[in-house]
Amino acid sequence: MIRILGLDPSLSSTGWGIIETENNRVHYVADGFIPTDAKTPIAERLAIINKALCDVIDFYKPDEAAIEQVFLNSNAVSTIKLGMARGVVIMAPAMFGINVTEYEPNKVKKAVVGVGKAEKKQVETMVKILLPGCQPKNNDSSDALAIALCHFQYRNSLMLKK
Amino acid sequence: MIRILGLDPSLSSTGWGIIETENNRVHYVADGFIPTDAKTPIAERLAIINKALCDVIDFYKPDEAAIEQVFLNSNAVSTIKLGMARGVVIMAPAMFGINVTEYEPNKVKKAVVGVGKAEKKQVETMVKILLPGCQPKNNDSSDALAIALCHFQYRNSLMLKK
Repeated sequence: MIRILGLDPSLSSTGWGIIETENNRVHYVADGFIPTDAKTPIAERLAIINKALCDVIDFYKPDEAAIEQVFLNSNAVSTIKLGMARGVVIMAPAMFGINVTEYEPNKVKKAVVGVGKAEKKQVETMVKILLPGCQPKNNDSSDALAIALCHFQYRNSLMLKK
Repeated sequence: MIRILGLDPSLSSTGWGIIETENNRVHYVADGFIPTDAKTPIAERLAIINKALCDVIDFYKPDEAAIEQVFLNSNAVSTIKLGMARGVVIMAPAMFGINVTEYEPNKVKKAVVGVGKAEKKQVETMVKILLPGCQPKNNDSSDALAIALCHFQYRNSLMLKK
């Protein structure tokens, strides 16, 4: 039995989702998002995100983690802000010695929806189909569950190759 | 008596420096840098940087912290990497409830050297003059001490204005 944590970082609302796999089957465990207030200093917002994720990891004890490779924004200030959020998010599993695998956004969509260019709504619909009983809290946690599902598919294919 | 922590973030080597101020005078306390290996996964490198900084803060117990505003790189991948390092660095004081003030790079150079466009070597020379007895470990920790000195100057002028 393996628990996978999917992560969708952003300064305003970081999504997380946990799934469990056993004998090549997968089921939903939990999902959520970490909103931060734009009026709070950025250093505090980052500390809030990291602390909340550490609490999630401490509680659900995932074995592996996955995150999307970064979406490069044409606006440098937005890119640096996303980078800062991504830094404190990707660091959280590493603080517990949990390995984090990175996936290209198109790969995540292809793994869940079947095509690389899918709308957020399509991703959410497929997440609900692939994880019966799951009602993602919002778009951010739905994306995080999609990333976890992507890792589930690729880790299995990697293990079959061995 | 106030202890100020200056921070110069980078993924490969984050610099830190601590100074102490009393009655408008300032002296050197400590400085150092946190190197990480390019072969180590990025999540682990970020965790190493944050952990080392938390150890520094826990040991020296600074009251305030200062960091340079970000240098926007024309290369988006470099910008996101710097953003990730910056995120885990600026978060460290916030984890201890310590306020972090941001300064433009030119402001730091002007505060220490007297002009906004100064070479690294000039900054290091002035850091040694302003902090007698201090031999900065390297360029990164020298820059971090310069940022702490910049905060010392500006916080004093801010307090005089009150």
